[in-house]
Amino acid sequence: MDLGLIKRYQSFLPVSEKTPFLTLYEGNTPLIKAKQLSQELKLDLYLKAEGFNPTGSFKDRGMVMAIVKAAEAGSQAVICASTGNTSASAAAYAARMGLRCIVVIPDGYVALGKLSQAVVYGAEVLSVQGNFDQALDIVREIADTSSVTLVNSVNPYRIEGQKTAAFEVCDQLGKAPDFLAIPVGNAGNITAYWKGFKDYRTAGHIETLPRMCGFEAEGAAAIVQGERVEQPETVATAIRIGNPASWETAEKAAKESNGLIDSVTDEEILDAYRDLAQKEGVFAEPASAASLAGVKKLRRMGKLPEGVQVVCVLTGNGLKDPSTAMDAVPVKPRVLPCEREAVMEAMTRGGRR
Amino acid sequence: MDLGLIKRYQSFLPVSEKTPFLTLYEGNTPLIKAKQLSQELKLDLYLKAEGFNPTGSFKDRGMVMAIVKAAEAGSQAVICASTGNTSASAAAYAARMGLRCIVVIPDGYVALGKLSQAVVYGAEVLSVQGNFDQALDIVREIADTSSVTLVNSVNPYRIEGQKTAAFEVCDQLGKAPDFLAIPVGNAGNITAYWKGFKDYRTAGHIETLPRMCGFEAEGAAAIVQGERVEQPETVATAIRIGNPASWETAEKAAKESNGLIDSVTDEEILDAYRDLAQKEGVFAEPASAASLAGVKKLRRMGKLPEGVQVVCVLTGNGLKDPSTAMDAVPVKPRVLPCEREAVMEAMTRGGRR
Repeated sequence: MDLGLIKRYQSFLPVSEKTPFLTLYEGNTPLIKAKQLSQELKLDLYLKAEGFNPTGSFKDRGMVMAIVKAAEAGSQAVICASTGNTSASAAAYAARMGLRCIVVIPDGYVALGKLSQAVVYGAEVLSVQGNFDQALDIVREIADTSSVTLVNSVNPYRIEGQKTAAFEVCDQLGKAPDFLAIPVGNAGNITAYWKGFKDYRTAGHIETLPRMCGFEAEGAAAIVQGERVEQPETVATAIRIGNPASWETAEKAAKESNGLIDSVTDEEILDAYRDLAQKEGVFAEPASAASLAGVKKLRRMGKLPEGVQVVCVLTGNGLKDPSTAMDAVPVKPRVLPCEREAVMEAMTRGGRR
Repeated sequence: MDLGLIKRYQSFLPVSEKTPFLTLYEGNTPLIKAKQLSQELKLDLYLKAEGFNPTGSFKDRGMVMAIVKAAEAGSQAVICASTGNTSASAAAYAARMGLRCIVVIPDGYVALGKLSQAVVYGAEVLSVQGNFDQALDIVREIADTSSVTLVNSVNPYRIEGQKTAAFEVCDQLGKAPDFLAIPVGNAGNITAYWKGFKDYRTAGHIETLPRMCGFEAEGAAAIVQGERVEQPETVATAIRIGNPASWETAEKAAKESNGLIDSVTDEEILDAYRDLAQKEGVFAEPASAASLAGVKKLRRMGKLPEGVQVVCVLTGNGLKDPSTAMDAVPVKPRVLPCEREAVMEAMTRGGRR
């Protein structure tokens, strides 16, 4: 039986005999061959489906590390600012570990499904009248001046846990892919993958490194524009961040790997979001689709050679944000009389479309 | 790399060389030790977390079988009536297989997260002015009189795929548990698990069989009451079914295994739902919690001996139904000014509760 991410990759992680054991069976997520999209885009395309994680996003990889290290250090409580996925993950692992969890969220900017998680897991949720960046400033100050442990992505153990996704991609392919495409919000994940690939090469598990291609949403494209975005806006709530905490390391990953950081529009994101579900059967949250949207953009612009192997990181589960799903697909269900003939007739018309 | 459920258990499944290959990496879900609840209830308690499946519920196990067999038979379209989980699963696998999917739902009785899935996966959703049982009658008639394949649980391949969950439980424990506790709605799943345990014993993989304990919601307890419920009502939407399709086989499973079928109230379900999240870090949909609610009830009534090994089947992901989550936990997030002092003060008060 699987013993979880930390046991699986402990030689690469900052754990010791004193580190408590904890897992909700994070990681070990499928790498799904994108059959139809590979054909359409003339690529060897794979999807790293991080929505399979216990709380539905890649955050669980880093959070399990952050929580065990907080417990190891004797902390009784953890705190984070979050637009959603981080809070859900922190609350779940804190519950499992028996720690108190305080979540500070920007009021009015969190998708329903995400907030419900933190609340159900028993986190104490505080909502502040500000944006994500302001909430983050507050929890940083609190962690600096109290015994509460900060578990936002600036917590260094988060990156350590998250880098295991790169190990898995290599284990699943038998090598590193040619390109790794990844959504960029707070920029911790691209930083973590790049560290993971480099660690794995140093250890002799892979020979080559992928080119790292990060994609911000156009309305929150601080790195691409070269300046902090004061009022970030995008349908991809999980990457609606105007001042990425790991800005520099993200740029470094792109530069060192001969990759790039680019942006994609909300329209491109929703188009890719529908593609994933309808062509591959994978329902990912909108932010996840930024990676595929970016790959499609690079192909259109001739920046991605035919036939190369590309892994798109899908960061979270589509169930995280059901309202976007309903808005993204124009057809609402038709209400019919409860009769066989009415249904048959509607089916025939549907088939002729 | 994992090749999916059908490849993993093909010797137990009705597949041949002509059966097309299909997987979205269903199955292989974690069996999570319920540490705190084991202690509280004085049991050796495990949670089979089926919310880890690709569309977030156990239905994926049976659906992958139903869809490959439909494709093998040359069908171009599948149809189902569904309160949610079945439609999501059918739509995902049909999309991956390239088949048309028609979903008939009872108007106004489907949780938002569930409907969004079928729609995003590209299913054609038709809503009829009736309840689940009436919708099921209509799709059965349509499948009988056309070339469209019915993929509701009356499709025999569904049960075959679903029984693999029993195999996994045995593989994970190294034997069958003493008791298996499972929610009962349409009753296909308890039927499938029982078949799985028996098949596995016949094949010599296990020696003993578990006692099967199925739990209906009190407002939809047709089997317990011995009569069809015309207007089923429960917060556990996934088991809000008044006339279980697999009624007889469910009763048979309980009888043959020296188990039982009982009911639990909505209050007991929501209490167990909070327990799972806050004590074990597992966010399951309300219907899933019927299994734990039932175990707690049996312990209270002295019907479950101390120390026995029990597996609770958690049928779906909590993200399927975010609105129930928000309703189930009374505390709404407090809105504070965006200042460190305000947050610190609120934290101190929270800690004193």
